[in-house]
Amino acid sequence: MQQLGDRPLDWIDGAVSMVDQTRLPDSYEVMRIESVPDMVAAIRRLSVRGAPAIGVAGALGVALAIQAHGTSGPDFDRAIHSLREARPTAVNLARMVDRVAPLAEQGLDRVLAEALAIRDEEIAASVSMGEYGADLVTRLVSERAARAMTICNTGGLATIERGTALAVIQTLHERGTLAEALALETRPLLQGARLTAWELARMGAPHRLLVDSAANFMLARRQADVVLTGADRIAANGDTANKIGTFSLALGARYAGVPFIVVAPESTVDMDTPGGSAIPIEDRDAGEVVSVRDRPTAPANTDAANPAFDITPNALITAIVTDRRVVRHDRGDSLRSVPLGELRRPANQ
Amino acid sequence: MQQLGDRPLDWIDGAVSMVDQTRLPDSYEVMRIESVPDMVAAIRRLSVRGAPAIGVAGALGVALAIQAHGTSGPDFDRAIHSLREARPTAVNLARMVDRVAPLAEQGLDRVLAEALAIRDEEIAASVSMGEYGADLVTRLVSERAARAMTICNTGGLATIERGTALAVIQTLHERGTLAEALALETRPLLQGARLTAWELARMGAPHRLLVDSAANFMLARRQADVVLTGADRIAANGDTANKIGTFSLALGARYAGVPFIVVAPESTVDMDTPGGSAIPIEDRDAGEVVSVRDRPTAPANTDAANPAFDITPNALITAIVTDRRVVRHDRGDSLRSVPLGELRRPANQ
Repeated sequence: MQQLGDRPLDWIDGAVSMVDQTRLPDSYEVMRIESVPDMVAAIRRLSVRGAPAIGVAGALGVALAIQAHGTSGPDFDRAIHSLREARPTAVNLARMVDRVAPLAEQGLDRVLAEALAIRDEEIAASVSMGEYGADLVTRLVSERAARAMTICNTGGLATIERGTALAVIQTLHERGTLAEALALETRPLLQGARLTAWELARMGAPHRLLVDSAANFMLARRQADVVLTGADRIAANGDTANKIGTFSLALGARYAGVPFIVVAPESTVDMDTPGGSAIPIEDRDAGEVVSVRDRPTAPANTDAANPAFDITPNALITAIVTDRRVVRHDRGDSLRSVPLGELRRPANQ
Repeated sequence: MQQLGDRPLDWIDGAVSMVDQTRLPDSYEVMRIESVPDMVAAIRRLSVRGAPAIGVAGALGVALAIQAHGTSGPDFDRAIHSLREARPTAVNLARMVDRVAPLAEQGLDRVLAEALAIRDEEIAASVSMGEYGADLVTRLVSERAARAMTICNTGGLATIERGTALAVIQTLHERGTLAEALALETRPLLQGARLTAWELARMGAPHRLLVDSAANFMLARRQADVVLTGADRIAANGDTANKIGTFSLALGARYAGVPFIVVAPESTVDMDTPGGSAIPIEDRDAGEVVSVRDRPTAPANTDAANPAFDITPNALITAIVTDRRVVRHDRGDSLRSVPLGELRRPANQ
């Protein structure tokens, strides 16, 4: 079986190779994606997921479009449109397609170089977020080793390498300042149970899983010192869209007085979206709710509501950590008031 | 196959017959429980569950103890002890065992009569809670048909007939004033998906299922008018213990300004427990979290935290509805200030 090393997604021999995240942790299977329709389907069914990762997937999809349709024309335009509309909530997908597609007239190599530049930027961003985030967490928990709660999967699978919120947890672990990671299983698609637990085990970090609805009681009982989440889009006012359950977790953190930190690269910040109410929320199929991993959980024909994301108001967010800055809402900072800073690397490199 | 009619639990031919709730909704199977150890095991694995139902099961268990050990002696005492300790959080179990066991010296028939009296009291209480609760909901939602959100299973399965919170929803439905029931699936054991959806379908009430973590976002988006939950124990100060996730839901209801109503019979009110922090919380096996209906959801050997219940502080509860009163926390009422009233029946009977 093909192996991708530490990257869940890459351009190999004229096509996109990616880990099929729907099959983890049962099996590690690499899919070869050779066409735009296959890429759109892979994004929709969450074989590749995570805002930064689907940004890279979309950019590489533009290369697939050129291979099929040349560098312009109606078929090319339709392919580009289908890529950017594959999922609505994460800003990275449309943004990265829009960044790469205008380069098509310069040819496949130029497009591919730009897509791989995006990939490398996301990798560097993950490292930097880990540094900024771990410093902040250690300050907020008064230098003790931290018990960090997180939702969904925000690791290397979601971002090519290391991740967003999970990059912070990994950096804390590498520094010896992680006491425990508490991962929410993240129904309906169990990205926390299937993917985050798998990544935490691979990095050797101490961790426990919990059902989503136990998180706020664990916070109230002082079982975690900090909550770290990713984001699919950050609006100009600091509201964030993220996996369903994030808003509820923010309420619990606020009630318990636990810092709630959103970790995402600058590529996820969307200053063109004024606030959370302007972020489109993807409603997914009821079938995801009435079954778990293809096993029915409810009577046949049960209907369900299935919003895949929610909005966390800026007032519930202690700080936003990106690859270039820390925006402390708790101190009155805003995205508009805090300038971009340095991209960071570990001190010992 | 034996059928129990509308009751999930009854005394038939010298033993307890009960629906095995762990098998629903896939199959409706009636178990015959002939000994105390079998009853303790059935309570522990949640074949019978719900605070009022396990109260009745415990009382009938005393009859099983007499059949095996006579009306006194060390074996009898050990059997009684094992019954009352089978699960710690719901007050009904220990309370009903303690009510019936002292009657043992008067013989099996007396014990059985008392256990069946408890059963009949719980049935009458369910009817009365439905009346009090539906009146309150209709008042709080300004006479519109209500969209009612609920967690876990609080229907006839949990209480012998009709239920607690679900009795209110059933009464609203029978009166034509239920717009929709929104049922949380209730991980880890999916009582909402498996049991509540099944009961709502049987009563013909419009309903949809949602993952637990979507509830608070649905509330924030004004998709429900009221939250109705049961309780496993209500402390003297009005704090309540209930299925894990209830506390989180109360936070979401408060944030959204949606009334949060706890529905439970007086048999669940425990004035000997001063507040929520004195209620024992059952921690259950990690295996329930790392799998769903026997299908693994996480990497092998993943550890988990699994508190089965949580505590909702009285300040987050709009009102407590019992079979004999409505305690409006939102108006300054308390359990100590509101006297017991009439047991109610539907107006047309």
